[in-house]
Amino acid sequence: MPLIESEAGLIERLRDLFHTSFENGVEVGIGDDGAVIAANNNKLVATVDMAVEEIHFKREWSTPFQIGAKLTTANLADVFAMGATPKYLLVAAAITEVNNSQTVTDLANGIRSVADKFKVSVIGGDLSKSEKMSLSITALGELSGKAITRDGAKVGDLVYLSALPGLSAAGLAILTRGLNRPKYVVEAHLNPKLVAPNNLMKVANSMCDISDGLVSDAGNIAKASGVNIDLSKELLQKSDDYKDLAELASELGEDVFDWILTGGEDHFFLATVSADKASDDLGLLVGKVEAGSGVVNLDGKAITKAGYQHF
Amino acid sequence: MPLIESEAGLIERLRDLFHTSFENGVEVGIGDDGAVIAANNNKLVATVDMAVEEIHFKREWSTPFQIGAKLTTANLADVFAMGATPKYLLVAAAITEVNNSQTVTDLANGIRSVADKFKVSVIGGDLSKSEKMSLSITALGELSGKAITRDGAKVGDLVYLSALPGLSAAGLAILTRGLNRPKYVVEAHLNPKLVAPNNLMKVANSMCDISDGLVSDAGNIAKASGVNIDLSKELLQKSDDYKDLAELASELGEDVFDWILTGGEDHFFLATVSADKASDDLGLLVGKVEAGSGVVNLDGKAITKAGYQHF
Repeated sequence: MPLIESEAGLIERLRDLFHTSFENGVEVGIGDDGAVIAANNNKLVATVDMAVEEIHFKREWSTPFQIGAKLTTANLADVFAMGATPKYLLVAAAITEVNNSQTVTDLANGIRSVADKFKVSVIGGDLSKSEKMSLSITALGELSGKAITRDGAKVGDLVYLSALPGLSAAGLAILTRGLNRPKYVVEAHLNPKLVAPNNLMKVANSMCDISDGLVSDAGNIAKASGVNIDLSKELLQKSDDYKDLAELASELGEDVFDWILTGGEDHFFLATVSADKASDDLGLLVGKVEAGSGVVNLDGKAITKAGYQHF
Repeated sequence: MPLIESEAGLIERLRDLFHTSFENGVEVGIGDDGAVIAANNNKLVATVDMAVEEIHFKREWSTPFQIGAKLTTANLADVFAMGATPKYLLVAAAITEVNNSQTVTDLANGIRSVADKFKVSVIGGDLSKSEKMSLSITALGELSGKAITRDGAKVGDLVYLSALPGLSAAGLAILTRGLNRPKYVVEAHLNPKLVAPNNLMKVANSMCDISDGLVSDAGNIAKASGVNIDLSKELLQKSDDYKDLAELASELGEDVFDWILTGGEDHFFLATVSADKASDDLGLLVGKVEAGSGVVNLDGKAITKAGYQHF
């Protein structure tokens, strides 16, 4: 599709904005009909995520930098969740101020703030005018071993979380009340940090990210694997982050376990791991896999509430 | 990003809609955090295209089927233009009627109408609500030889077009006047047909698709290769399609060469080919490559008019 007025100028600007010195086997980058990559091996993971103004973000709350960073985080999390290493991004952005250099630059810098951290190259893009901003990012990752899918959980596996979820929901609760602090809580919602689940990737029988909410995503693993996942309130409370989160919830009159179990938009990872590979290096041990038919239990009682929904 | 109300149900529906029996090395398809593909070799071409309501299409003119088909066509054309064979698509769609099964089905069927023709698999997707419809598609293709980039045109090359452009612009001119026939002309704009440039791919020194308009895209090759491209009015008029197009232009009081040179949105291919490989099987011979510095000439006179612009 044709781009904006000076397509050549824009492509050059995007090429500059996304120029890095990472090798990554990019033989042809931005500027031709398509990019050419020579991956290290022939197995790739591919995933696409979209964020739309008023549905996934509000311009009053989020800067273009944060919008770009957050979607990149969501996208790379999906690649890691498959046990792969993200390498390439293709970005399609629709923005109101298409001729506003600053918005394009801020979006690009937000995307790069996350991509650079993981040495990921932006190899393609498209830009269009639109009444509402929307952003769609495709991530490609290299898979050196077997993909870690949702259907690999085994009865007897331990359930680990890379970190305690809920802080993003806390940030959203604060913003919804018209407040903007504590800053680290609001930031957890507007620009969540991504940490690669390096240790979990080495040993997980099944894995997913929990951006749709812990119960919802644990349910996906339980269903795909034909098992039950039993979470323990006591184990979740053992997290170093629990106390702060519980205090925030209490101050705002909310249920901290609503945030933890169904909050969503925390880009952490849930994995099931054989019991003989148990280790504190894997994150928080929060439960175990039991024989069953796709149910998620908390302390033995089924949780049916769906994850956080945008509408 | 979380999807709509019943994410599980939706993913299952998309998985059904995009289910094919093509092999293509898809190890994990729609339904996990990401798709896993095992390509036949390690070189891939990747490209992304976006279409936004009111900018690239109007809902009064285009059905969801046509919108899906047209963007897929644009996308696959970019892969072919690099000399690669398209294999995989990832689709992000934002639509108003997100719970309207029919719109999602029609969009998916439109995408498949083109993808199936080229045995391309849809391996990932995201769907969101939005006030205006927008669609973004990433295509991945396999490259068995060297990529055909824009910088390979050599002085003395012949310039070929896979077909005469202009019919899409004619269709747009008709729709803009509130008319809707001749049908084949309107269809050329709303649901352009894609023919793989199989013969050109085998011999081209440089190639691009001409969706931004012949002069604009020929200019990209001229600049990237550091040559001039000399087009010939007489040669363009030799096309079998010229007479009909000229008659349409005359009926509508438009300049047929405006359509041919700057119309845009025809997903045909421009390639430069060594003179010793000249053949009628390559399409229309329309000019030659001369020494120069990035200029496109028509009968020896520089054409500076930019290609078709959406805004």
